[in-house]
Amino acid sequence: MDELIIKGQKAKQASFIVSQLSSNDKNKGLKAVAKALLDNEKDIIEANKMDVLRAEENGIKGSLVDRLTLNTDRIKSMAEGIIKIIQLDDPIGEVKWMKKRPNGLEIGKKVVPLGVIGIIYEARPNVTVDAFALCFKTGNAVILRGGKEAIHSNLKIVEIIKKALLSVSMPSDAVSLIEDTSREVATKMMKLNEYLDVLIPRGGSGLIQAVVNNSTVPVIETGVGNCHIYVDKEANLVMAKDILINAKTQRPGVCNACESLVIHADVAEEFLPMACEGLLKYNVDIVGDKIAKSIVPKIKPASEDDYGKEYLDYKISVKVVSDIDEAINHINKYNTKHSESIITENYSNARLFLDKIDAAAVYVNASTRFTDGFEFGFGAEIGISTQKLHARGPMGLNELTTTKYVIYGNGQIRD
Amino acid sequence: MDELIIKGQKAKQASFIVSQLSSNDKNKGLKAVAKALLDNEKDIIEANKMDVLRAEENGIKGSLVDRLTLNTDRIKSMAEGIIKIIQLDDPIGEVKWMKKRPNGLEIGKKVVPLGVIGIIYEARPNVTVDAFALCFKTGNAVILRGGKEAIHSNLKIVEIIKKALLSVSMPSDAVSLIEDTSREVATKMMKLNEYLDVLIPRGGSGLIQAVVNNSTVPVIETGVGNCHIYVDKEANLVMAKDILINAKTQRPGVCNACESLVIHADVAEEFLPMACEGLLKYNVDIVGDKIAKSIVPKIKPASEDDYGKEYLDYKISVKVVSDIDEAINHINKYNTKHSESIITENYSNARLFLDKIDAAAVYVNASTRFTDGFEFGFGAEIGISTQKLHARGPMGLNELTTTKYVIYGNGQIRD
Repeated sequence: MDELIIKGQKAKQASFIVSQLSSNDKNKGLKAVAKALLDNEKDIIEANKMDVLRAEENGIKGSLVDRLTLNTDRIKSMAEGIIKIIQLDDPIGEVKWMKKRPNGLEIGKKVVPLGVIGIIYEARPNVTVDAFALCFKTGNAVILRGGKEAIHSNLKIVEIIKKALLSVSMPSDAVSLIEDTSREVATKMMKLNEYLDVLIPRGGSGLIQAVVNNSTVPVIETGVGNCHIYVDKEANLVMAKDILINAKTQRPGVCNACESLVIHADVAEEFLPMACEGLLKYNVDIVGDKIAKSIVPKIKPASEDDYGKEYLDYKISVKVVSDIDEAINHINKYNTKHSESIITENYSNARLFLDKIDAAAVYVNASTRFTDGFEFGFGAEIGISTQKLHARGPMGLNELTTTKYVIYGNGQIRD
Repeated sequence: MDELIIKGQKAKQASFIVSQLSSNDKNKGLKAVAKALLDNEKDIIEANKMDVLRAEENGIKGSLVDRLTLNTDRIKSMAEGIIKIIQLDDPIGEVKWMKKRPNGLEIGKKVVPLGVIGIIYEARPNVTVDAFALCFKTGNAVILRGGKEAIHSNLKIVEIIKKALLSVSMPSDAVSLIEDTSREVATKMMKLNEYLDVLIPRGGSGLIQAVVNNSTVPVIETGVGNCHIYVDKEANLVMAKDILINAKTQRPGVCNACESLVIHADVAEEFLPMACEGLLKYNVDIVGDKIAKSIVPKIKPASEDDYGKEYLDYKISVKVVSDIDEAINHINKYNTKHSESIITENYSNARLFLDKIDAAAVYVNASTRFTDGFEFGFGAEIGISTQKLHARGPMGLNELTTTKYVIYGNGQIRD
């Protein structure tokens, strides 16, 4: 039998056990794992070195090698991440509501684990620990399929997690790693409906699209963010500038960074020069439409393509609009339903933007960079959903659960 | 351009308008539609006759022709269904929670429409009205793709709905019907990610499996129910008999009907003869394992296959188990995660069953037939979800919504 089926069966069996564990027991398991990661730091770093060496030999670029690399500090922070998850409330078992029907049936909606969660991700070995801890805390089993670049690190980490779970009598099959990192196996995993209840891709847009297009298992789409900042006619322009610079430059490689500035024509002449001055200090490449270019000649011409792009880099597009309706239509046309912000002092325009923009997070007078499980106060994050089913926006522990109706009767039958 | 793209674009545009309508306006639209259905009763029945005639010519079986047929009473009850939906609370716009973060940002989780909902269904023209009304009430646009058997009825009904919407200045593209009923177009619709936010199949297991396997649009899987009743050692056997007979025979063709009896060995000798006597009065075909057969010789042998089957008919399988754990394992192995019931007076066994059975609805001492949006008090139902993402169990208006984070700031940027 192949690896996927064997691990799928084992995960399914383990999920029944993990779903019944008390919060105390799950926290005991997590604590043992955190300790084991620190205790086995050397082994992890040694395994990681094999991955890093191979990546360097293969000429993989520096930022990717950096993401792949583990050291004492990073292992410490993985363990600390688990401790933080231990401290969070366990969502499992809460009855969200219960009511008595006219026939005497008492019907309650209870929070329960999803079952078995599949995670397909790329070269970041910290995702291995993170995803396990979030799934285990919520009573789920997890099947991990990381990138081939991190296979040695992942194998070692999962081995350590399994041993730690066993040491405190928890089911080690609550976590498993698919060792075959071929694309064929990933594609097969996307059709493993018999054992997987949900599949979450974490990584670049290529990976996410492949999962969305090929998976028959229900998917939670995460990540891609073509985020806009719209500076309205009645904006506080100093605030607008600070927010724009922050959203574009504070960490340009992440999904909630700003990729496009939309500006009302009436304030473009005043705002664009000060905004561009600020952006150019960070060497941001600015492309824009004709009006923008006529105001700031350093702006390069934008192609239609630019407005749909998630640069993830020091680059931004600029679009001048004649009113808020044009701004809203432009954003709804090009955005990826992630995070959008309006800068305005106008009450009605703020409401219009909040109501009409179709996105997971819509801001007034704040940076788009806040779309994040920690910043939203969830204490942890498994990703940011850009779809509308099940979860939208940052996903914490609650989003790794489902519900079950529990019904107490005393002999009711239907007429 | 093809029909799907044109209708997809129009529905997307309409969804932005419908999402912004007040509850009063949406109710005004629904009222106009209810009235128009009654006013145009003759036209509907005339169109329906074409479908019925063709069905009879094609030798389609009686129960299907019955489902297809519309008459004065059925049209009245479609209109009454809309009036009931008007009376329900509009879930859109509720802020489920809002909190202030340490940096002063106020973050709220607001209920908003899904956008454009696709419904693929079979030969029941009442679904056309029902699905439209539920989607419109929740601020969604809907694209309907009904079966070819009902195409004349559906065309007429959708024409009437569109005219009624226009008569009260509502966007008629809030509803559209795909006129090409070929399988190719249905398959294309399953990949219409650009315009569809969710796809809900309503019909038999063949249709549902086709949608699950082919759709790249997020799907809510509905319907198939292999439901069990487990009669525990400490059950009130008279209650158990009444519930079993009700769950099997009150309406055997629906998904929440009981398909399998699981019985504790210690009470099998007492219970099976009385249960079978009751079932045989309804001419229920009973298949079971060797022990069951040794107690009631009229029971025919069950194949492995029988335990996994949704008969939707006057047929039931019987399995004798030696304890509750075997019952739970048997049910979790063969069920379709729909509805399961234990009959017991034992406190610990009731809890064990509620906790360990993996299904949308788990009952103690009641018939599985109650899994239904109306019986659960939702006032309406678009289907019963058997998946775990987004919605589980009966889906009412709330399940046709998603959420959006609305964030109020005063210049916050991220450190």
